Amino acid sequence: MPQLRKDPIIGRWVIISTERAKRPKDFSLIDTSPPEKECPFCRGKEYLTPPSVYSLEDEEGNWQVRVFSSLKPFLEEEKEFWKKGRGPYDLMESVGSHEVVVETPFHIANIADLEVENIQKVFWVYRERIKALEKDEKVKYVLIFKNYRWEAGGGRVKHARSQIIATPVNLKRVKEELEGAKFYYDYHERCVFCDMILQELDSRERVVLEENGFVAIVPFAPRFPFEVWVLPKNHSPDFYKISWEETYSLAVVMKKVLEKIKKLLGDPPYNYMIHSAPFRRFYPGYWSTIEEDFHWHIEITPRLTQVAGFEWGTGFYICPTLPEEAAKYLREQKV
Amino acid sequence: MPQLRKDPIIGRWVIISTERAKRPKDFSLIDTSPPEKECPFCRGKEYLTPPSVYSLEDEEGNWQVRVFSSLKPFLEEEKEFWKKGRGPYDLMESVGSHEVVVETPFHIANIADLEVENIQKVFWVYRERIKALEKDEKVKYVLIFKNYRWEAGGGRVKHARSQIIATPVNLKRVKEELEGAKFYYDYHERCVFCDMILQELDSRERVVLEENGFVAIVPFAPRFPFEVWVLPKNHSPDFYKISWEETYSLAVVMKKVLEKIKKLLGDPPYNYMIHSAPFRRFYPGYWSTIEEDFHWHIEITPRLTQVAGFEWGTGFYICPTLPEEAAKYLREQKV
Repeated sequence: MPQLRKDPIIGRWVIISTERAKRPKDFSLIDTSPPEKECPFCRGKEYLTPPSVYSLEDEEGNWQVRVFSSLKPFLEEEKEFWKKGRGPYDLMESVGSHEVVVETPFHIANIADLEVENIQKVFWVYRERIKALEKDEKVKYVLIFKNYRWEAGGGRVKHARSQIIATPVNLKRVKEELEGAKFYYDYHERCVFCDMILQELDSRERVVLEENGFVAIVPFAPRFPFEVWVLPKNHSPDFYKISWEETYSLAVVMKKVLEKIKKLLGDPPYNYMIHSAPFRRFYPGYWSTIEEDFHWHIEITPRLTQVAGFEWGTGFYICPTLPEEAAKYLREQKV
Repeated sequence: MPQLRKDPIIGRWVIISTERAKRPKDFSLIDTSPPEKECPFCRGKEYLTPPSVYSLEDEEGNWQVRVFSSLKPFLEEEKEFWKKGRGPYDLMESVGSHEVVVETPFHIANIADLEVENIQKVFWVYRERIKALEKDEKVKYVLIFKNYRWEAGGGRVKHARSQIIATPVNLKRVKEELEGAKFYYDYHERCVFCDMILQELDSRERVVLEENGFVAIVPFAPRFPFEVWVLPKNHSPDFYKISWEETYSLAVVMKKVLEKIKKLLGDPPYNYMIHSAPFRRFYPGYWSTIEEDFHWHIEITPRLTQVAGFEWGTGFYICPTLPEEAAKYLREQKV
């Protein structure tokens, strides 16, 4: 029986199409990568990439996680920052930055296969880069995301990495979430994410795991099959205020979730992205409640299906797996 | 020099990344379709699909365009219509419909390859189905779209067809456009699309073609490389009010644009979608100006690149081709 479900945060309707229900092994995608040449991300090949802007070393002083500016940046810093209008259009040039985080010196493709201590360092590096990039007052948002495998936009080199983009504009998706969270807060005087976590922990039907202050759930109205959100149980709007100890707990949970996805779905392409509040709280109407109404989290979206024109043009997604079944599969998958 | 551009209608920012500029022949996608079996959409194979709910015949009385209910519908009509809440969540079941429009009795894959008179009939059928579906008062929106080729969500059978979905909710993308158009109208008391058309016809740099009352442009801030919008030059909020003569002009323009895309970009997968105003004008605050503020149009999006996690999570797209160059290529492509 197909269902329509509405994401309670940003108001997006999703069809849960059980008529097209798929089980984990029903999905397939073809990897068209050519055989690999020299990997520029391995230890000893640093000369193939720009110099590090930040790195974390192990006890022997060798880098374990390193960050450099992208060779082909989406955004770039120029001497002068300018906005202009042209007729009805707005234009902005040459601001922001785009960095690559190499997550391991070894030739390992999936962050799920790294040690927890290594994954912890990756999240710590995210935090440190956000704090550094925030100092530039032109930067409004810092986006952390991962594209794993070519089909998820991840390039052809099979070495674990993620990306950091600092933008001079607030992102549409983030704005939508902020607006939704604010709308809910104005009525209930509670955080919609906190309420959602309580609801999920009561029913448990969409909980994948709950551990060390974090919870992983399949959202009520996911855009994609086997989509998972990881949230801190304690309210906090800002990812970058996470402590060193908390990054360890987060690394444990992320490793388990990503291993479950890997094993259950046959090492599929996926994306993850950190949704955190903008650090400049000057949104009209928002600054006064954003501390209480927004809740940082990570969204993980496996790439299992073709995305049709329908989704593109409408913001109306078709998810072919019941969220409760996806959560059950993931919960029961051993790692 | 990368640029940030903001869509003046819905406020979406796009990066125009000229550092990653691609020319038409730089794009490629792999078609993984297996050899075809029997085509259920050809004349004589009607028994392989549900019965027609509507069709247009040629002079000999043979169908030229036919519509039937999808065998695997995204949405379906049930006896009872219900909405319910569960904790913080909203749920709606079993409403709406999903139809398939077979655009030709012959085994031709791309609508661009049909005769203008045939394409005209396809658009006329869209119009007639919208008018019929509108009569159900539970239907809030009727969406017309095409997924051409597997990579664009189009299935594996290479026979030209499009889809019609009637939904009981208003679509996010449509809402966003309505809100943007209304916001502009409230200030200027003019239609933002009309203003955009004037601006484009003045500068001509993003015009692909202008003919018989229609204009095809590459938008100022496209989501995808070689994205094209087709708009009627005369203001009208509703596609379904198009006349028989106007569907001919539209068919001429659509055939040319789609042929240009086919020849220039090597017969790529693409999607198109009709954006029309909702026929129920009871949006709070909208009903009074929607006649003047909204302007129906068709958005055509070739599928030339992988979509990365960045786009998914942010509503912030990366388009690797300068719109003015894309328009020039398309304008100069002979058909």
